[in-house]
Amino acid sequence: MSEQTPTPEELRHRERMQRKKALVDRKIARATVDRGVLVVNTGNGKGKSSSGFGMLARSLGHGFHCGVVQFIKGSFSTGEEAFFRRFPEQVDYHVMGEGFTWETQDKARDIAAAQAAWHIAARMLTDARYRLVLLDELNIALVKQYVMLEQVLPALAARPADQHVVVTGRGAPDALVAMADTVTEMRVVKHAFEAGIRAQQGIEL
Amino acid sequence: MSEQTPTPEELRHRERMQRKKALVDRKIARATVDRGVLVVNTGNGKGKSSSGFGMLARSLGHGFHCGVVQFIKGSFSTGEEAFFRRFPEQVDYHVMGEGFTWETQDKARDIAAAQAAWHIAARMLTDARYRLVLLDELNIALVKQYVMLEQVLPALAARPADQHVVVTGRGAPDALVAMADTVTEMRVVKHAFEAGIRAQQGIEL
Repeated sequence: MSEQTPTPEELRHRERMQRKKALVDRKIARATVDRGVLVVNTGNGKGKSSSGFGMLARSLGHGFHCGVVQFIKGSFSTGEEAFFRRFPEQVDYHVMGEGFTWETQDKARDIAAAQAAWHIAARMLTDARYRLVLLDELNIALVKQYVMLEQVLPALAARPADQHVVVTGRGAPDALVAMADTVTEMRVVKHAFEAGIRAQQGIEL
Repeated sequence: MSEQTPTPEELRHRERMQRKKALVDRKIARATVDRGVLVVNTGNGKGKSSSGFGMLARSLGHGFHCGVVQFIKGSFSTGEEAFFRRFPEQVDYHVMGEGFTWETQDKARDIAAAQAAWHIAARMLTDARYRLVLLDELNIALVKQYVMLEQVLPALAARPADQHVVVTGRGAPDALVAMADTVTEMRVVKHAFEAGIRAQQGIEL
């Protein structure tokens, strides 16, 4: 905008930015592969599921057909479910029917519910119509061994080449991390809950 | 479901789950405050912005009116922008006009663009109609001092009591972390980009 002679400080800034841009451009030039990626969000912090739902929103913005299976789900209805069920032509949305497992205290019933949810997920992983599949809280079901790695890893490996999969939940098993393309650990720095603030609509619910 | 006598293993599981439920119930009973929370997503890992967009989706599911200001934004159009612009009656969506700063190399223009975006954000923070305000990549603008903490912190402190704010971007300043209710550090375990896979539609874009 300004047509005045740049100051020495402005020139230094410009050079720094040019070097930074060159570095970024080189990194981008090296990354040339397009394919479906396996994303894992784990750790104890907030944002694992919400990040999955953000990628779901991104995918819908590109017109992709998507699938969601929520594995461990409270009995309350959530904002994300209410919202994404608005788009039945673009999203197949399944919620495991049993509530949090520590509320049922019946292991056989929990396993049956988790296996039924996995069955729906496994079908999505064979169907190239689904460009993104979100397996929300699958890691919890894996840690509890309600769904087995021996079921999940082969299904992920055999999925359509351009299908993205996002797996969330704390305690992601090492073998899943090893197979994944992008893995993030959400680390708690602090949480409102610890200050006596309950789960808020629009944030946690 | 099963009416047979439980095995000792099943009884132990049930007791463990009952203790766990009691613990969770006590923690939940102690968390009784309802108010707008300030959430900060920072760190070098993936999921900071996408988690913000997931909370936006949750908020829309509850029927909330929401605001989005994207501070540092590439020149490409993104899936999240395409998607959330479908709901102009529920979301006011603003994107800073200048692309990534290392592509412009003109600091004065970048500062002007960041300040214009902040001006829109600051107005949202005075308006109780917005139940959630997402300030995407604001931390980048703060780190670069294109927007000043002295502008941001008082505006956050004076916002309506039930308004949630989500701030994303690496390098969250200490004073912002101190003021926030919930802070997550997204830590990279690995990223597909390092394996030569470029940014994918629906995942990064």
